[in-house]
Amino acid sequence: MKKYKKVNVPQEPRVELHDTLSLTGAEISLNHFSAGAGVPFVHSHKQNEEIYGVLAGRGKAIIDGETVALVAGDWLRVAPAAKRQFSAAEDSSLSLLCIQVKENSLDGYTRDDAVVEG
Amino acid sequence: MKKYKKVNVPQEPRVELHDTLSLTGAEISLNHFSAGAGVPFVHSHKQNEEIYGVLAGRGKAIIDGETVALVAGDWLRVAPAAKRQFSAAEDSSLSLLCIQVKENSLDGYTRDDAVVEG
Repeated sequence: MKKYKKVNVPQEPRVELHDTLSLTGAEISLNHFSAGAGVPFVHSHKQNEEIYGVLAGRGKAIIDGETVALVAGDWLRVAPAAKRQFSAAEDSSLSLLCIQVKENSLDGYTRDDAVVEG
Repeated sequence: MKKYKKVNVPQEPRVELHDTLSLTGAEISLNHFSAGAGVPFVHSHKQNEEIYGVLAGRGKAIIDGETVALVAGDWLRVAPAAKRQFSAAEDSSLSLLCIQVKENSLDGYTRDDAVVEG
């Protein structure tokens, strides 16, 4: 069986990759908000850490009541319990990557987990 | 204590986010290869699943000897044991996101892990 899977993701309001790629250690979503649009609710998590990356555009996050400006190139780690809500700016769209992983689940990584061929 | 951390990532050959963002469930790297450049070795992993996203440009991966063409918008799940090597095309740079997570570490996610505020 092939040990990889590939998909090309179109620009849609929201694309979730967990099922499409048969992920077992993360859920990943690609979110595209038009200017003025955003997630219509505040949420937190029980177990999962979320890492957000701003791929394009501008917007903001409100995290535990604090407003955090977002521009392309910004990356955030948000703890499970933090109450968060993301939206695009009034005059800019926002492309936002969201990576959901179980907090404290990573053991070794990179040099400690990789096997480099001779 | 603040329950989030933010950083703006410049375009450099390689930026690793684990330590910068105090990640506990993933290592994330942003990799920028110039045309003709690539990772100089083949590698696999012991425990970690990797998810790769092509943020810009074109290139290829060689996975277990098979050549896989890469263009912007492509996302791949690569199993730990797969032997992989990524490179930019001869005539295009390649911006590649790599997300490293422990295989089978995710329990509930999205609706099963989120707490939505009223």
